[in-house]
Amino acid sequence: MSAKPNLHTILSPRLLDIYDVTDSIVVIIDVFRATSTIATALYNGATRIIPVDSVEKCIELGNLTGGITAGERDGKIIPGLKHGNSPAEYPRSFIEGKTLVLTTTNGTKLLHMALQSGASEVVTGSFPNLSALCQHLVQQKKNVFLGCSAWKDRFNLEDTLFAGAVIEQIKSHFTIHCDSSLMAENMYSLHKHDLKSFIQHTTHWHRLAQYGLEKDLEYCVSPDKANILPFYQNGDLVIA
Amino acid sequence: MSAKPNLHTILSPRLLDIYDVTDSIVVIIDVFRATSTIATALYNGATRIIPVDSVEKCIELGNLTGGITAGERDGKIIPGLKHGNSPAEYPRSFIEGKTLVLTTTNGTKLLHMALQSGASEVVTGSFPNLSALCQHLVQQKKNVFLGCSAWKDRFNLEDTLFAGAVIEQIKSHFTIHCDSSLMAENMYSLHKHDLKSFIQHTTHWHRLAQYGLEKDLEYCVSPDKANILPFYQNGDLVIA
Repeated sequence: MSAKPNLHTILSPRLLDIYDVTDSIVVIIDVFRATSTIATALYNGATRIIPVDSVEKCIELGNLTGGITAGERDGKIIPGLKHGNSPAEYPRSFIEGKTLVLTTTNGTKLLHMALQSGASEVVTGSFPNLSALCQHLVQQKKNVFLGCSAWKDRFNLEDTLFAGAVIEQIKSHFTIHCDSSLMAENMYSLHKHDLKSFIQHTTHWHRLAQYGLEKDLEYCVSPDKANILPFYQNGDLVIA
Repeated sequence: MSAKPNLHTILSPRLLDIYDVTDSIVVIIDVFRATSTIATALYNGATRIIPVDSVEKCIELGNLTGGITAGERDGKIIPGLKHGNSPAEYPRSFIEGKTLVLTTTNGTKLLHMALQSGASEVVTGSFPNLSALCQHLVQQKKNVFLGCSAWKDRFNLEDTLFAGAVIEQIKSHFTIHCDSSLMAENMYSLHKHDLKSFIQHTTHWHRLAQYGLEKDLEYCVSPDKANILPFYQNGDLVIA
């Protein structure tokens, strides 16, 4: 029997450095809404997405590249940037052939932490690109870390449910000795048939629903609507 | 409507300082096995338990107080200490009227972090003292943080399941906007009827079962076998 690669789930950016992610694939998960928006914009023809960790850098790179600046803090568009963090803002008619410079509260932060941690590959995952991600992880035969972006380092359900959806699809290809992964798979299995109603119990739903984003959030838990694999390369997220 | 106090669940010591625990009760949970052993030893008549964070301090205080030194690292008795971290080592015939000086991998570490964080009260929770803990938390009408000791800062299932058991009993008395708590309650609800078989899937079970501790672990998920409330006061854990 040849050894299967390992799979772990990391429930908060605060827990990333407990794990040795060298020579591994780190999947950045920020279901509401950074990684859902990243998959959607690339699927709809964006040339590349530049994830940045500060508003200043977002504006600077927007000017330098002629790209569209976008970002949110605490669910609201940041003053000085042109667009927000909703996948609905990036249809093909708007984003095709363009560069998107994106900064968000949680997802872009974890992405930069993962890049600095020695991971051999950083990709992004969300329900809109669930199957493309799973197919890639199985093909690579490398250790995998599913990294939940959480909310200001606090555990969140939506990222965990997505980790569970991935584990359900690919678990037979991996060795999994990880309570976080077992929990994530259990939670997904418990709620997969009523995801859209269950997420209305999450704290993030209550945070964002007050801005009228229910349709957005429902899209963000719908599988394979933007089924490509965003892959980090030389500062950009592009289609793998 | 008078406002109910808040309840949060903290899944790892690494996440403790995200929360403001001042004027709150922090419950230290280390199901396998520190807090199960603490409840059992006090229930069986130990005068007090002194939780310490190092082996040196354990030996020093053992000499000073004439207490029994006990502790484990990675599931094994520490050389130089007299006893381990198994509740079965502390029947009434042995522990009654004695002081226990205890150091463990995870539980005593979180306890000391909680003491330094400004909590107004620190108590310990485990299945053997589930009902006594729940009754106390309801009576106090204060904000509550259920603190999981985890395993070397990694999320673990057994502490989470215990948090879920507490939440199931007391949730109507608290305001809960916390995804960790919602998850913990879901996980407990999913597995409460087969706890003893489910915990055999946890990583901690695999770690300890190799030392022949199955009976110990089964005791540690049995409710109300040592139904008292361990309460931290002036360096000691005593019965509240």
